[in-house]
Amino acid sequence: MSAGTTNFVRRVPAGEDRERLTCADCGFVAYENPKVVTGSVVAQDGKVLLCRRAIEPRRGFWTIPAGYMELGETVEEAARREAFEEACAEIAIEGVLAIYSIARIGQVQVLFRAHLATPGIAAGEESLEVRFFDWDEIPWDDLAFPSVHWVLRAWREAGAGPLGAPATNPPEDRRGVHAPGGAA
Amino acid sequence: MSAGTTNFVRRVPAGEDRERLTCADCGFVAYENPKVVTGSVVAQDGKVLLCRRAIEPRRGFWTIPAGYMELGETVEEAARREAFEEACAEIAIEGVLAIYSIARIGQVQVLFRAHLATPGIAAGEESLEVRFFDWDEIPWDDLAFPSVHWVLRAWREAGAGPLGAPATNPPEDRRGVHAPGGAA
Repeated sequence: MSAGTTNFVRRVPAGEDRERLTCADCGFVAYENPKVVTGSVVAQDGKVLLCRRAIEPRRGFWTIPAGYMELGETVEEAARREAFEEACAEIAIEGVLAIYSIARIGQVQVLFRAHLATPGIAAGEESLEVRFFDWDEIPWDDLAFPSVHWVLRAWREAGAGPLGAPATNPPEDRRGVHAPGGAA
Repeated sequence: MSAGTTNFVRRVPAGEDRERLTCADCGFVAYENPKVVTGSVVAQDGKVLLCRRAIEPRRGFWTIPAGYMELGETVEEAARREAFEEACAEIAIEGVLAIYSIARIGQVQVLFRAHLATPGIAAGEESLEVRFFDWDEIPWDDLAFPSVHWVLRAWREAGAGPLGAPATNPPEDRRGVHAPGGAA
């Protein structure tokens, strides 16, 4: 929220059951919904593409190409756009690798497995550098976000064959985990 | 957007590359992002739970229990909440059945397969009636939205065993379809 000089208050609008961020001056209700982050584990010859962030948060740390979906695009289009913006990579999406909920910060992450559709990568404006890493070279201590750890492990576990059910939040983040056969 | 008496204009904020809805009076930038709809195909003895909508849009038509995610919840929590609100159903989520992008209206739908965790359903405030339908009884001509058709077919195709890769937008809605092995 880039509220700046605005005068927002929390109020329950007529006909609703919970407080919404409302401008006390003009009455505008700013619905705050979770945002969709989408991105891809882009693999080539068993290596994965990582980007060193040129922007905050976590400037200087490594991540997969990913970012917020914009209106008017599909999740797949958004993932391809992010790969192009951050790594000048034209990717082909293979399928959904993981869906994570980061409830604390209002995010849903839809992460794909992909490969390069055309050769070549280069640092985009939001990246300091981009490169492919062998599994053993991945800079685990310098990854930008927990979900980058999660999805890289999910990619490794999925192997190179057909994708199965997408990964969900891992055991160390129990809240989002499914409980097959029983209520969570 | 329930703008009411506000004075919003489209402007490119400093440091951004596209127009954002901005209040000309107070400068508030209302970021418009896609919203996440989450819901479930809830099955029991091979039948699926449908709810006849008591609210617009599509009042009187049938849908699966589904709705917009709220801040502070995971997608799974949101799907369980919607099933409870619309059908007084306590559900257990089995896994992700489908992910659809409805770019035209800025929606991403994350839809689960589920079953009742405790017996019993009843119409919630947003439903006129709720019931389980055999496949051959489903009121196809009175379904509320195209994605209800899509996900019911995806459920049928998935069978009752372990879930595989989630369904994505079907051929009649080509734009969101993956193109494995090539750029879409």
